[in-house]
Amino acid sequence: MDFKDYIRVIPDYPQPGIRFKDITTLLKDGPAYKAAIDAMKELVKDKEIDLIAGPEARGFVIGAPLALALGIGFIPIRKSGKLPGETVEATYDLEYGNDRLAIHSDSIKPGQKVLIADDLLATGGTIATSIDLIKQLGGDIVGAAFLIELGYLSGRDKLSGIDVVSLVTY
Amino acid sequence: MDFKDYIRVIPDYPQPGIRFKDITTLLKDGPAYKAAIDAMKELVKDKEIDLIAGPEARGFVIGAPLALALGIGFIPIRKSGKLPGETVEATYDLEYGNDRLAIHSDSIKPGQKVLIADDLLATGGTIATSIDLIKQLGGDIVGAAFLIELGYLSGRDKLSGIDVVSLVTY
Repeated sequence: MDFKDYIRVIPDYPQPGIRFKDITTLLKDGPAYKAAIDAMKELVKDKEIDLIAGPEARGFVIGAPLALALGIGFIPIRKSGKLPGETVEATYDLEYGNDRLAIHSDSIKPGQKVLIADDLLATGGTIATSIDLIKQLGGDIVGAAFLIELGYLSGRDKLSGIDVVSLVTY
Repeated sequence: MDFKDYIRVIPDYPQPGIRFKDITTLLKDGPAYKAAIDAMKELVKDKEIDLIAGPEARGFVIGAPLALALGIGFIPIRKSGKLPGETVEATYDLEYGNDRLAIHSDSIKPGQKVLIADDLLATGGTIATSIDLIKQLGGDIVGAAFLIELGYLSGRDKLSGIDVVSLVTY
């Protein structure tokens, strides 16, 4: 299955010049969505993984089903203020301003093997910050898995030492 | 399995007097998370469903896996400005101010049978607005399924004519 057939490209969103990769057209097709999660599972099948962590909100539609497919738990990484329990947090820079991500302090035990999952690897800022949070909890990052990788943005370079896999590359 | 054993109650979040039901403690337990999705699938097994729609962000961790378990597609309902394609939108009142939800205009074809899924039925405001959006697209609402229902908030009353099922009630 060529997953690109199910991903819609929307020009000039969210800004002029950006060709946004819209995965909602894949998600709404039951067989294609299932095939994508199954294919991502296949990409990480040789890893020992205790937990999957994914940033909100699109990371949830990839990371949570992937965790269930692997029979393991899912840890949400959210914007600051959105998690009810005690958190550790980290700030990262956006093109304009910055954003702050949080993870529950008790979500990962030291030494647990964590795979990060998200819909898209772009510049890697969100993922680098997510890795920082997981490491603060003592988690052992075993890799990062994406539905889509924008190769021309070189997000991999920001994730040195992390095994990065992706299903579709632009 | 008593799912309440996996749901953490956090007092005074997000405001004094509220006993917040935290599902992240369930999500991080692989077998419990899978059992919850399987049990929700069982609750809706007699319905004919073409698509599941769920509001961000916690609705994604319930609705998307439930869609995959049923072999059908998932439609995200998001805050205004977060979906890249053409949308229909509706505003709903919060205790302070209001919020605006959006759905892709082409996500549902007229006559398609849609189940709404979310983590929690509280006062029903988000779900009533989600139903409004789906109806604007001509979707046929076949029910609403929740992991948790706060019975004392009577959210069901706001969803008259909708078949509401929930896994756990407080």
